[in-house]
Amino acid sequence: MPVTVAVDTTGADLGPGEVAAGAVLAARQGVHVRLYGPAELLRPVVDGVANVEVIDAPLSIAKAPDPALAVRSNPDASVVQAVRAVAAGEADAFVVAGATGAALAAGLMHVRRAKGIHRPALALPLPAPSGPVTLVDVGANVEARPDHLVQFAFMGAAMARTSLGIERPRVALLSNGEEPTKGTPDVVEVHALLAERLAGHAHVDWVGNVEGVDVITGAADVIVTDGFTGNVTLKVIEGVSQAVVGGIRGAATSSPMAMLGGLLMKPALGRFRKQIDPEGPGGAYLLGLRSLGVVPHGRFTRHGFSQAILRAAQGAEQQVIDLIHSDLEAAGALRRAPSAVASAASADRSTE
Amino acid sequence: MPVTVAVDTTGADLGPGEVAAGAVLAARQGVHVRLYGPAELLRPVVDGVANVEVIDAPLSIAKAPDPALAVRSNPDASVVQAVRAVAAGEADAFVVAGATGAALAAGLMHVRRAKGIHRPALALPLPAPSGPVTLVDVGANVEARPDHLVQFAFMGAAMARTSLGIERPRVALLSNGEEPTKGTPDVVEVHALLAERLAGHAHVDWVGNVEGVDVITGAADVIVTDGFTGNVTLKVIEGVSQAVVGGIRGAATSSPMAMLGGLLMKPALGRFRKQIDPEGPGGAYLLGLRSLGVVPHGRFTRHGFSQAILRAAQGAEQQVIDLIHSDLEAAGALRRAPSAVASAASADRSTE
Repeated sequence: MPVTVAVDTTGADLGPGEVAAGAVLAARQGVHVRLYGPAELLRPVVDGVANVEVIDAPLSIAKAPDPALAVRSNPDASVVQAVRAVAAGEADAFVVAGATGAALAAGLMHVRRAKGIHRPALALPLPAPSGPVTLVDVGANVEARPDHLVQFAFMGAAMARTSLGIERPRVALLSNGEEPTKGTPDVVEVHALLAERLAGHAHVDWVGNVEGVDVITGAADVIVTDGFTGNVTLKVIEGVSQAVVGGIRGAATSSPMAMLGGLLMKPALGRFRKQIDPEGPGGAYLLGLRSLGVVPHGRFTRHGFSQAILRAAQGAEQQVIDLIHSDLEAAGALRRAPSAVASAASADRSTE
Repeated sequence: MPVTVAVDTTGADLGPGEVAAGAVLAARQGVHVRLYGPAELLRPVVDGVANVEVIDAPLSIAKAPDPALAVRSNPDASVVQAVRAVAAGEADAFVVAGATGAALAAGLMHVRRAKGIHRPALALPLPAPSGPVTLVDVGANVEARPDHLVQFAFMGAAMARTSLGIERPRVALLSNGEEPTKGTPDVVEVHALLAERLAGHAHVDWVGNVEGVDVITGAADVIVTDGFTGNVTLKVIEGVSQAVVGGIRGAATSSPMAMLGGLLMKPALGRFRKQIDPEGPGGAYLLGLRSLGVVPHGRFTRHGFSQAILRAAQGAEQQVIDLIHSDLEAAGALRRAPSAVASAASADRSTE
């Protein structure tokens, strides 16, 4: 039975049709895709392609300023319908193009947290010359307790093993120095907990602390941090790489001689760009729910959207959710069953 | 009367002679320099140059694994002698090449914290196309309370006005979003405190929150953060810019055609490199002591060392320490006189 992925198409900068074009690419590799968005834009693109279904859902909340409120108030929004299809068992994973907040809110509300998980997290595979480096959390939790960060490590590792196909991911903790004593008291505590829980793990290697430079060196496959530091890190990477690339592009057009030089270098630069292509790893992964979600960036092209769908399917097929649960259970890192009152209060908080 | 700067030369990758060569450049612009290091390496470089004095201090602790211990145990180390010259009034500011930990430890022990300052901080002007963006703190305080961060803002602004010559610095707070409600509870509190204390300030503009991308966009001249986030940010910038520049350099040598292209682009790229030259702003500034300290990176060339000396002199001449004090006093942000016991305990902590 093929895996089915429910896809919200309405948050793409290039329009729903571009996501549909990505779905066609994924469908050709055997994934069954359910596309949610304005049918009149989707149907012409997928016309005659096997394995792609279109559900007319023209209402978009991708740009809503308060995604949680928008999800609650718009049960017929495309993202809500796509995520509910997963909750209802009509699809195995969801992909939401360019709307992280709405995906997180809809996921928490309808798919819900997986058993034993404190908080869902966003894991983003950053393109690096030696292969993707997954940073987790990149912004779902501005504050995170040591127990949460320990779970993020296992969640990121399971995602890297399944969706990214990294057989034995190397997991590290982001700090301001490599020594176990470096960092805030929370970071020092997480280091000790992870060192203990990942020692001798059958499928994961524990690297220890890494520094900011290692988001790109390839010293680790998965780097754990809180959502505040992760978000800042991500935005710094965006800013600096854009500035450097922009500066070099500016230089390449500053004189006729430089322009000729730039032209001659173009094929070689293209290969480098491909190496650090942000679309390859498919976008950000929403981990810790009862099903897997992937959020490709709104400015992606069809290539990135197809990657997101394929990798979501791969994660679902390889049962990433079960893997996270069994790994956390073996490590004694599952959240203990809370009292009914505490559980209700925390469910409230999560959907805020 | 010319300003005198005491310079520890022993932590430079290119050797003490390179720092001496930088001192010669600074001395020619009227700064009086006292050089600490192995005299037999320094004297040949400064021979016959006016305004440069050599003090034979061959013992280096620049690479000591525990800088605070090394400072305590080696009163004759070059960095200790240079910093003590400032404490003794023989120099107005100190420059320590390539040894941040030793500079901080020696500064705290001998120059000591300025009155009303909670914690010293390291402010680093990052090279950006539109001019330096000063990040403070980049690692002196892994943990920082909201009161500390408020002081960092004033300290960074005063440094930007004096050493960097920015008439009216725009000050911002690093967060995961621009809205005042974004960030950890501490960040939200600092935002509120700074909004109040910088509103209508005579010499500083309050920008509000900025995101990681703004370390390079030029949206602010001074960006405030804790030492953990600041250190991670700094290392991410280093890693990403090295990777991008390295990737492009690799592309430029990957084929004869690309090599020719690289050659043609070289002059234009040189201009861009100069724009983002890390040596121009002189290095990291140690703020919050009774005198100003500057820590140029160990891998700088003579150009960077001369910049560090010139900007340290400029800060001292324009009385950056007094400026910080009067600004904090006017804003009601000075640390209140603690009880004798609290003061002793906190002094202990600071020199750990």
